[in-house]
Amino acid sequence: MSTKRPHHASRGLDEQERQQVTNRLKRIEGQVRGIQRMVGENRYCVDILTQISAIHESLRKVSETLLREHLDHCVTSAVGSGDHRETQRIYDELADLFNKYAR
Amino acid sequence: MSTKRPHHASRGLDEQERQQVTNRLKRIEGQVRGIQRMVGENRYCVDILTQISAIHESLRKVSETLLREHLDHCVTSAVGSGDHRETQRIYDELADLFNKYAR
Amino acid sequence: MSTKRPHHASRGLDEQERQQVTNRLKRIEGQVRGIQRMVGENRYCVDILTQISAIHESLRKVSETLLREHLDHCVTSAVGSGDHRETQRIYDELADLFNKYAR
Amino acid sequence: MSTKRPHHASRGLDEQERQQVTNRLKRIEGQVRGIQRMVGENRYCVDILTQISAIHESLRKVSETLLREHLDHCVTSAVGSGDHRETQRIYDELADLFNKYAR
Repeated sequence: MSTKRPHHASRGLDEQERQQVTNRLKRIEGQVRGIQRMVGENRYCVDILTQISAIHESLRKVSETLLREHLDHCVTSAVGSGDHRETQRIYDELADLFNKYAR
Repeated sequence: MSTKRPHHASRGLDEQERQQVTNRLKRIEGQVRGIQRMVGENRYCVDILTQISAIHESLRKVSETLLREHLDHCVTSAVGSGDHRETQRIYDELADLFNKYAR
Repeated sequence: MSTKRPHHASRGLDEQERQQVTNRLKRIEGQVRGIQRMVGENRYCVDILTQISAIHESLRKVSETLLREHLDHCVTSAVGSGDHRETQRIYDELADLFNKYAR
Repeated sequence: MSTKRPHHASRGLDEQERQQVTNRLKRIEGQVRGIQRMVGENRYCVDILTQISAIHESLRKVSETLLREHLDHCVTSAVGSGDHRETQRIYDELADLFNKYAR
């Protein structure tokens, strides 16, 4: 899939969304480094596990923004094109994502 | 909680586990940076969302190791001490973790 | 939402899908009754918890079928109508569902 | 596992907890039947999916009570017995449950 569509056909995130997502990912990178530090300092496991659960939450917020963008642009464009096969492909991807995240 | 027990009463992760967890966290840090790059390059959202789902999976593996260590050392020590209040406290924490991760 | 759209504008599940979903829900109902029995018989908690986790899995399979049907019919119809407001509404619902299931 | 320990060694849920869990399971059974009805009436998929998400939530509440009971009785008893092998077995089960629920 990624070899066939490495980049967006449509415009993707607008500048403000991209900046917001990038800032969030930088914060997440910091959170991951914070956990490395906690492990190195032999901190209490439950505190580390609580921090990891906060990273899951931060990642979900990023995913929400990306999903919304995907719906607004890629899904709208595929369905609007009237190309039945492309629409099926994009729905298969969405259902697959739902399974990955819902499990 | 973290102010009361900033460090492990018990020995925590052994050297091999700590190294394994640290290596995994470094890989996760790399995965997060990879996602920043994908966002910067306007890569296809679904590919980014698939990568984020892989990070959730990597974090879960780290959590499993930490949980196991927590059971082996902290829970064993609390229950073994016969201190009822401390045992209740550690069970409350475990139930709370379960809720955080199971939702 | 349910008061405004109690029924499908579009055709919804076809007969075969409806039968499959109904059969799965009947099996799930049986699984829930099985758990009531296990609780009544004072069965081992971990075995009960394992069975509950199997129900979560069965429910996810039902959700997948319903989501797929929703994409194929409702999303296609909303986007295809060219009604921007309706499309936004249906995307808001999808993003909201994703959050409910992904947490 | 279930063949080896079909019933609780320890006392399991007390009468009040058992009643509460049983009542919750009856409500969940009703929720599952409600969804069968919604499917039969061709109700809007998103409303059905929202109801299914409410069942997941109700099941989690039952799981929390059972997990807490498991910690209080089975884990306490296994660790307190000083039987290292039994303690390991019960921790393996807990870690396995965590994986089943956290995925």
